[in-house]
Amino acid sequence: MVKKSFTKIGIAVKKIDGVELVTGKAKFTADMKFPNMLYGYACRANVAAGRIKKIDYSTALAIPGVVTILLAKDIPGPNIIGILPPFDQPLLASEEIRYEGESIALIIAKTKAVAKSAAAKIIIEIDPWNPILRVDEASKEGVRKIHPQGNVIFSKKLIKGDVKKGFEEAEVIVENTYHTGFQEHAYLEPEAVCAVPMANGRITIYASCQSPFHLRTHISANLNVPASRVEVIQAYTGGSFGGKDDVAAEIGSLASIAAVKLGKPVMIAHEREESIIGSNLRHASRIHYKTGAKKDGTIVAREIEILLDGGAYASESPFVVMKALIHAAGPYNIPHVFVKSTAVYTNKTYCGACRGFGVPQVTFASESQVDELAAALKIDPLELRYKNGLRHGDATATGQVFNQSVGLIETINKIKEKKKHSHPTEELNNSRWLYGTGFSCMLQGISNGAEGIDVVGASVQMSQDGSVLIGVGLTDMGQGSRTVFAQIVAEVLGITIDKVTVKQVDTDSVHDSGPTVASRGTTVGGMAVFKAAQEVKKSLVKMASLMFKSEEDQIILKDNFVFLKNNNLAKIPTKEVASAAYWTGFPIMDLAFSKAPEANYNHETHQGDIYIAYNFGTHMMNIRVDRYTGKVEVLQHIAAHDVGKVINLLGIEGQVEGGSLFGFGLAHMEKVIFQEGKIINANFADYAVPTVKDRIPTETILVEDYNPTGPFGAKGIGEPPVAGAAAAFANAVADATGVRFRKLPITREDILMAITN
Amino acid sequence: MVKKSFTKIGIAVKKIDGVELVTGKAKFTADMKFPNMLYGYACRANVAAGRIKKIDYSTALAIPGVVTILLAKDIPGPNIIGILPPFDQPLLASEEIRYEGESIALIIAKTKAVAKSAAAKIIIEIDPWNPILRVDEASKEGVRKIHPQGNVIFSKKLIKGDVKKGFEEAEVIVENTYHTGFQEHAYLEPEAVCAVPMANGRITIYASCQSPFHLRTHISANLNVPASRVEVIQAYTGGSFGGKDDVAAEIGSLASIAAVKLGKPVMIAHEREESIIGSNLRHASRIHYKTGAKKDGTIVAREIEILLDGGAYASESPFVVMKALIHAAGPYNIPHVFVKSTAVYTNKTYCGACRGFGVPQVTFASESQVDELAAALKIDPLELRYKNGLRHGDATATGQVFNQSVGLIETINKIKEKKKHSHPTEELNNSRWLYGTGFSCMLQGISNGAEGIDVVGASVQMSQDGSVLIGVGLTDMGQGSRTVFAQIVAEVLGITIDKVTVKQVDTDSVHDSGPTVASRGTTVGGMAVFKAAQEVKKSLVKMASLMFKSEEDQIILKDNFVFLKNNNLAKIPTKEVASAAYWTGFPIMDLAFSKAPEANYNHETHQGDIYIAYNFGTHMMNIRVDRYTGKVEVLQHIAAHDVGKVINLLGIEGQVEGGSLFGFGLAHMEKVIFQEGKIINANFADYAVPTVKDRIPTETILVEDYNPTGPFGAKGIGEPPVAGAAAAFANAVADATGVRFRKLPITREDILMAITN
Repeated sequence: MVKKSFTKIGIAVKKIDGVELVTGKAKFTADMKFPNMLYGYACRANVAAGRIKKIDYSTALAIPGVVTILLAKDIPGPNIIGILPPFDQPLLASEEIRYEGESIALIIAKTKAVAKSAAAKIIIEIDPWNPILRVDEASKEGVRKIHPQGNVIFSKKLIKGDVKKGFEEAEVIVENTYHTGFQEHAYLEPEAVCAVPMANGRITIYASCQSPFHLRTHISANLNVPASRVEVIQAYTGGSFGGKDDVAAEIGSLASIAAVKLGKPVMIAHEREESIIGSNLRHASRIHYKTGAKKDGTIVAREIEILLDGGAYASESPFVVMKALIHAAGPYNIPHVFVKSTAVYTNKTYCGACRGFGVPQVTFASESQVDELAAALKIDPLELRYKNGLRHGDATATGQVFNQSVGLIETINKIKEKKKHSHPTEELNNSRWLYGTGFSCMLQGISNGAEGIDVVGASVQMSQDGSVLIGVGLTDMGQGSRTVFAQIVAEVLGITIDKVTVKQVDTDSVHDSGPTVASRGTTVGGMAVFKAAQEVKKSLVKMASLMFKSEEDQIILKDNFVFLKNNNLAKIPTKEVASAAYWTGFPIMDLAFSKAPEANYNHETHQGDIYIAYNFGTHMMNIRVDRYTGKVEVLQHIAAHDVGKVINLLGIEGQVEGGSLFGFGLAHMEKVIFQEGKIINANFADYAVPTVKDRIPTETILVEDYNPTGPFGAKGIGEPPVAGAAAAFANAVADATGVRFRKLPITREDILMAITN
Repeated sequence: MVKKSFTKIGIAVKKIDGVELVTGKAKFTADMKFPNMLYGYACRANVAAGRIKKIDYSTALAIPGVVTILLAKDIPGPNIIGILPPFDQPLLASEEIRYEGESIALIIAKTKAVAKSAAAKIIIEIDPWNPILRVDEASKEGVRKIHPQGNVIFSKKLIKGDVKKGFEEAEVIVENTYHTGFQEHAYLEPEAVCAVPMANGRITIYASCQSPFHLRTHISANLNVPASRVEVIQAYTGGSFGGKDDVAAEIGSLASIAAVKLGKPVMIAHEREESIIGSNLRHASRIHYKTGAKKDGTIVAREIEILLDGGAYASESPFVVMKALIHAAGPYNIPHVFVKSTAVYTNKTYCGACRGFGVPQVTFASESQVDELAAALKIDPLELRYKNGLRHGDATATGQVFNQSVGLIETINKIKEKKKHSHPTEELNNSRWLYGTGFSCMLQGISNGAEGIDVVGASVQMSQDGSVLIGVGLTDMGQGSRTVFAQIVAEVLGITIDKVTVKQVDTDSVHDSGPTVASRGTTVGGMAVFKAAQEVKKSLVKMASLMFKSEEDQIILKDNFVFLKNNNLAKIPTKEVASAAYWTGFPIMDLAFSKAPEANYNHETHQGDIYIAYNFGTHMMNIRVDRYTGKVEVLQHIAAHDVGKVINLLGIEGQVEGGSLFGFGLAHMEKVIFQEGKIINANFADYAVPTVKDRIPTETILVEDYNPTGPFGAKGIGEPPVAGAAAAFANAVADATGVRFRKLPITREDILMAITN
C-alpha cells in the first residue's frame, strides 16, 4: 500500500446528529403525532404453553374510546413473521401459545390508556400445558413438539482435520461445560412504530427499527399488498443491538393492518415490560469444551458442543448457531477442530440477534478454557494465546487463510506492552480486596458471510451547491454509522463534513440492503457509499478537467475546492464544478451497490471461505473483588482491536467502550429470571443493566491491519468488544478469587457465596 | 424497425391514481395537517410601480393569533428567485414595487383568517410611479428602467438563408401584425406549500409544484442552508401548465423561512385571486409576419418580429423567447427565414411558462397568415400547407434535418381524408348561422433542446415480491405521466400494471431532473425509466438463466412470469426470480439517467440541431357562428398528431382534448383585463375559462412516426394541441364570418361587433 494521507478519516469526528440527540430535539417514533392518530396495545398470553379455547372481547370493545380489536383472523396475509426459515412466528396467536407474553389480540383505541385498560377486559380461555423450559428437556426423544417440525431449530457441524487424531496427539487435555444466561438488549428506547395510510393507497411506516426492508417485506405480506405500496422510514432509533428486527416487523404489521382498516394513523409504542417479555433475548447456552495441547502449549485439538436456548420461535437462531459454530474454536491456529452447534425451542420468550450473535457466549467459554489449559500447562495465559494466535497466512477453524488483516498478534503485543506497566496485582491482595487480571483473545467475522447475502445499496447525491445527501440501506441505531458514511464521502469528494447530510433509511429510495447486523455498517455499507461517491467524483473530475482544460489525473478535490495538481492558485469552488457538471449533463448522483464476495464453503463441514474479514482483539482487565460484598471493581480495562483502518476514532472508541460495558453487563450484572416460563424481572428495577455509574475504565488501542474488502481498509467494530470484555472479566474473577465460575453472569452474590464458603 | 408486439403500451390504460383523485381520497397540500401548524398570508402591493417609503406592522402584529411578520430583511439568503438568468425576483419586495400584487410582508398566524385580517392592518407607504404598461413604451429609448439592466429581458435572432433574397424571389407577399393576450393557467388547485421542520435539522416541503428540484435550489439558497438539508416532496398537484414554478419557489421559500424560524410547520395556500395576480401568466404578444411565396404556393421567405410582454420579472421569458423564435416559421420547408424574438419588462404581473411556451402565440399568427397567403394565391389552405409541409429529410427553420419522425404530411393526409366526409359548410350558411372551417398545421419541439440541459433521473426498484416502485425526477401534475411510466416498466419487465407503483417526486431519492416542462415527461423521463427498468431486467434474466440452466437470450418476461422461449410450460413467477436475484446479490434496483443529445447550434443565427424531436400536428375545426350573439359553436374538431408511438392511448386522448380546450380558451374566451396595471378580473366569475359545458368535440387521430430518442419511439403531446386548436379556431372564424381577426382572444363580443358593423 502506498501511504496516503487523509483529512476526513482516521480522525475523531463528533456524531453528525449528536446535537439533536443530546438536546432532545430529535423526535423518536413515540414522539410523533399525526391528526386522528390511534393507539394500539396488545393483550398477551398469561401462560407459557397451551391451547386457546375462547376469546371474548365484547366487554373490552364496549369501552368508550376503543375503536376496534384485531384477532388473528383479521390479518389479511399469512399471519407469519420470521427473519430466516423456518418462518414460524404469528403476529397474533390463534391456536397454540408458545411463550408467556405472546400477543393474542390488538386493541386500537383513541388513547393508549384506554387501549391498555381494554386489554385487561379481554377474556381469553386457555387450556394450559406443562411448558418445556430446559434445553435438555426440549432435546429429549418423545417430548411434546413446540413446533410441528420438532424442537430442534437449527443444528450444524464444523469439521476441520481429524479431532480424534488430534486428541491422540495431545499431551494435556482439559474438558468442561460452561453456561451463559439470557440477556436483554436494554436499549434506551423501547420498540415503537407508527403506520400512516397515505392518500395514494400506499402506507408509510415510521419505525424504531434495525432493518427497514425486513419490515417492508413482512408488512406487505401480512397486509397482502405489493411491497411497492409500503414505505418504511426509519425514525431516530434509540439503540437496537439486534433487538428491533422481529418485534418491529410484528408491531409494524399490526399497526399497518389497523391503519389500513381504519384509514387512520396507528401508533404502537412498547413500554419497558413489553419490550423485555415481547421481543427477542440473547440465547442462553450450554457449551461443552474439550481442548488438547502439547506440553509446549501448542493446541492441537478442540471439540465443542453448543446448545442454545432459542425460546418459542426461530427468529435469528440459525444465524446465532452459525456464528457460534464458526467462532467457537477461537482466534487460534488449531489443526483439528470439531464443533456442533444447535438451537432448540423452549416455551420461553424467543431468542435472536443480540450484539455479537453467539460469539460472546462461545468466547467466554473458549477463553475460560484457554486459561484453564494455561494453568494445567503452567504457561502464562497471555503467552499461551500468543503462541497459538492466528497470524497472516494461518488457517482459521474453517480453513480460511487470510494473508491480510490478521492483526491478532499485534493486539497481543500491545497488551503485553501495557501489562509490563501494570501493577503486579498479586502483591496488592490484602484482607479486604482480592486483585486479579484476566486476558482474552477473540475474533469476530465481519458482516453476514456464511449466514446470508451481503448486498448493500447507497446513493450519493450532490446538489448544485456542492452539498451532498447520502442515502444508505443500513440503519444508524446509535452506533454512529451516519457519521462514518459522511466522513467517507467527504474524504472522497474533498469536501467538509458540514456539507454532508445522511438520511435515515427510507425503503423507497435505496436497494434492499438486508438487515443492519453483524458489524456490517462500516465495512459493507461504507463500501457502497465509497463506490457511489467515486462515481460522483468522476463527474466532478471530468467537469473540472474541461474547465481547467487539463488532464483528469491533474485534478485534486480538497477543502470544498477543486485544484489543479501542483498549482494552489488554480482552484474552483466544488459547488461551481458541481453546478457546471449538472448543466453539462454529467450525473452528480449515483446509486451504488457493494456486494461482499460470496462465502464459498462446504455446507457439511463448514470448511471454506466464510467471511470477508475478521475483527481481532485482545483484552486485559484488572479488577479487585470486595471480599465483604462480592462487588467487582474494574481498575483497568484495555481493549486492543484490529479495525483495519480507523474511520472515526471517536466512534470506534464509543463502540469499544459501549461494547465492553455490554459485555460487562452480560458477565456480571444481567440476569433474565424465568419462573415457570414467566420473566419475573421485566423491568429495570429488577433487571440490573450497567448504568453510567457502572462504567468501566476502558482504554482503546487500535491496530490497523489493512482490510482490502472495506472502505479505506476498514473493518467493523460494533460487536467484538462484547465478547472480549465478558471473557476477560471471567478470567479476571478467576484470577482474583481462585474460583473458576463456568457460567455467566458471575454476579456479586455468586462471588460472595463462592469466596465465603 | 422490426415490428414488435406490446402488451402494456399502445393501449388505453386508466390513470393509476384515478380512483384516489375522483373519490376525493387524494390529499392535496392544502388538505394536509400537522400538529402546531401555522398559516402564512402575504400582504401585497396596491400599486403597479413605486418605491416603498415605510412599512408599519405594529397593529397587525398585536392581533391575537398573529405569531410573526416577515419582511425582506428577515430572509437569511439573497431574497432572490428566478428560473433562468437574469435572476431578478425578490421573495418580498423591500425597495421598488414592480407590479400590483407583489408580496411585501408575510404574516404568520395560527389561522389563515387571522393572517388575512392582519394583512389588511399593515400600513405600507409607497411613492407611486407611472407604471410602464405597454411593450412599445417599455422598449422606447430613455424610458424608466424597470430593472437596472434595462427593459429588455431577452432577445434572440434566427437567420436561415437570406431573407432579403427570398423576398426578391417571391411573387406574392402578405404582411400583417397579430396580437395575443395574457392567459391564466387556471388550474383547479391554486398554489400551496407546507414546510415542516424536521428533528434532524432538515426541512421537508410538501408542495403543489411542477419542479421540486427548482424549489429545493431556491429554498436552500434563501434559507442559506446546504441543499442537502432540504427535501421537497411533490404532493398531489391539481394542474400546473407551467404555472407552479416561480410561485412555488416563492411561497416554498417563505414558508420554509418562517417554519425554521418558528420551529413549526407553516402552510401557505393561495386563494384564487392570489393565484391569478401573484403567479405568472402566459405572455401577451405583438407579432409581425411577412411571408413571400411563388405563385404556385411555394413559400420562399418569412420575416417575423415577436415582441413579448414579460411583465415585472424575467421568470421563464428567455425560454419563451427561444421557443417563439424557433417555432415562428411553422412546420414548413422555407429556404429563407429571419426571426427576431424579444421579451420586455412592464409593470404587470410577471409572465412565464404556460402550456406551449410561446408556440401557441406564433402558431396562431403564422397559421393566420398562411390562410391569408392561401387567399391571396387562391390556393386551398390545406393544399398550401401540404405543399410546403416538412417531410423526412427536409430542413426546419433552424436547418435541422430529421430523417425519422416527421409525421406532418401524414397528419395532413388524415385531415384531408376527414375533410372529404365533412359537410360542405358553405351551403349551410343561412340567416342565423355562419358556418366555417379552419385548418392549422404546427410543430412543437419536444423537451428542452436549445433552452437548456436535459437530464432526467429515474429509479426502478423491484421488491422480492416482484412488485416495482418507480421514482422519477419529473412530476405528474395531472397529465398522467405516472401511468405512462408504469406502463413502460410493466412492458419492459413483463409484469402487470397493478404491480407497479409510481412515487410522487421526492428530491431526496432521485437525480435533479430539472423542470417538468416542454412535453419532456414521456420522452426524456420515460427514457430514464426505460433504461432503469432494462437494468433490473438484466438481473432477472441473468437469474432466470441460472434457474433454467439456459442461455440469457432464451428468457422471456411476460404476465408476471419468466418463461423459457418456445416452452410455455417452463415458467417461474417473476417474484420468485426477483427473490432469487436478490438473495444471489444481483441488484434489482437501478437509478438511470436519460440525457438528451446536446443541442448543437450557432448561437447568433440559431442554425443547427435544436431539438431531439418535434411533435407535428394538423387540426381541422368546423364551427358555426350565431349572427345574433357572436357565439361560436364548435361542431367538429379533429386533431391529428404525430406522437411517435402511443404509450397510453387514453392519456394521449386526454391531453389532446384538454390541450385543445386550453387553446380554445386562449382563442375565444380568456382575457386577463389590466386597468392601470391592476388585474380587475382575478376570479373565475369575471375571467371566463372553459368549463365542462364549453367542451369542444375533439376527435384525436394519432400518427406514429417512430422517434429514436423516446421510449419505444414515443414523443410528448402535452403542449402541442393548444397551438393547433387556437390557430384552427381563428381560421375557422375568418372562414365563417369573412372577417380576419388578427388577435386572440376573438371573443363573442368581438365577433358580434365585427359582423354587425
